[in-house]
Amino acid sequence: MKQQLKQHIEKTIALSDREFDFVFSHFDQKSFLKHQFIIQEGNYAHNDYFILKGLVKSSHIGEEGKEHILQFGTESSWVSDPQAYHTHAKATLNIQCLEDTQTYFISFQEKEKLCADLTKMEKFFSKKTSLEQITLQRRILCLISNNAQNRYEDFLRQYPNLIQRIPKTMIASYLGVSRETLSRLSHA
Amino acid sequence: MKQQLKQHIEKTIALSDREFDFVFSHFDQKSFLKHQFIIQEGNYAHNDYFILKGLVKSSHIGEEGKEHILQFGTESSWVSDPQAYHTHAKATLNIQCLEDTQTYFISFQEKEKLCADLTKMEKFFSKKTSLEQITLQRRILCLISNNAQNRYEDFLRQYPNLIQRIPKTMIASYLGVSRETLSRLSHA
Repeated sequence: MKQQLKQHIEKTIALSDREFDFVFSHFDQKSFLKHQFIIQEGNYAHNDYFILKGLVKSSHIGEEGKEHILQFGTESSWVSDPQAYHTHAKATLNIQCLEDTQTYFISFQEKEKLCADLTKMEKFFSKKTSLEQITLQRRILCLISNNAQNRYEDFLRQYPNLIQRIPKTMIASYLGVSRETLSRLSHA
Repeated sequence: MKQQLKQHIEKTIALSDREFDFVFSHFDQKSFLKHQFIIQEGNYAHNDYFILKGLVKSSHIGEEGKEHILQFGTESSWVSDPQAYHTHAKATLNIQCLEDTQTYFISFQEKEKLCADLTKMEKFFSKKTSLEQITLQRRILCLISNNAQNRYEDFLRQYPNLIQRIPKTMIASYLGVSRETLSRLSHA
């Protein structure tokens, strides 16, 4: 499991075994059951979670009580509420497990200490934030494009292996279309 | 003008005059007239622009030819197409000037060189990316919240001094409401 995190970080920066052990000493481990929440709207959310195994959804509940799914997260991806994490505000997102999920996590405070002591980790986290920013930008372009077919194709591109693991009603919610429209799109 | 950039960077990290001169040597200057484009969809967009003076809008043209405004940028804010900048892909956004606009800009390549030579600038850009990520997240929550009143109040919070400088039709486009609905909101 440690190797999964090491390999992930080494896609951006090189680390000796000793350096990785130092990095790893700033992380903790936590497991969640299907349906449990990793982050709940209204609570503080100081941690950034690296998913070792499992599947989660990140969502927001609109004024009218309707759930809007922002993104899904699976093996070797990170999940957090970026606003709550970086500004120490209360979470505006919910992150809930769709499968039993195992994570390593790092608190904002530990991340700051780690980057001060091993400056190349700043580069890793900076690159990671850039990628997350790009995902959010793609999500915005999806949301404001009124073409459901494009949104469906973008979903398949972003999550090629998840189509079987995510309930159809959640894919429809992510795309902002009805269950019937999704059925039409997936048979097109 | 150099002082404006120095003060901006010094909100995140301390820089000696000599260090700032080194930072500044990685920037270029460019001015744009009202209506001109800083970034156009479909072109490469290697630069990140720091606005010294002026006002711009960042937008995407949907399939149906309708313009969707993502955000506005003004004095001491940064504008770019994050996806195009970080991945060297073609721009999916347009950034157009609503007023005559003066900028300093840094290319992705120069930014990488700068961060390698002066590692504390990595921390500055990392923090900047986090803030941009938060802005995108707020924008997503705005887009998926169906409450126009909330979106209008959020606009006022984010751009307290811009209400007089931005045409009402563009504010309506940003909020995703009609000109008539905006008029009702702004008189509520």
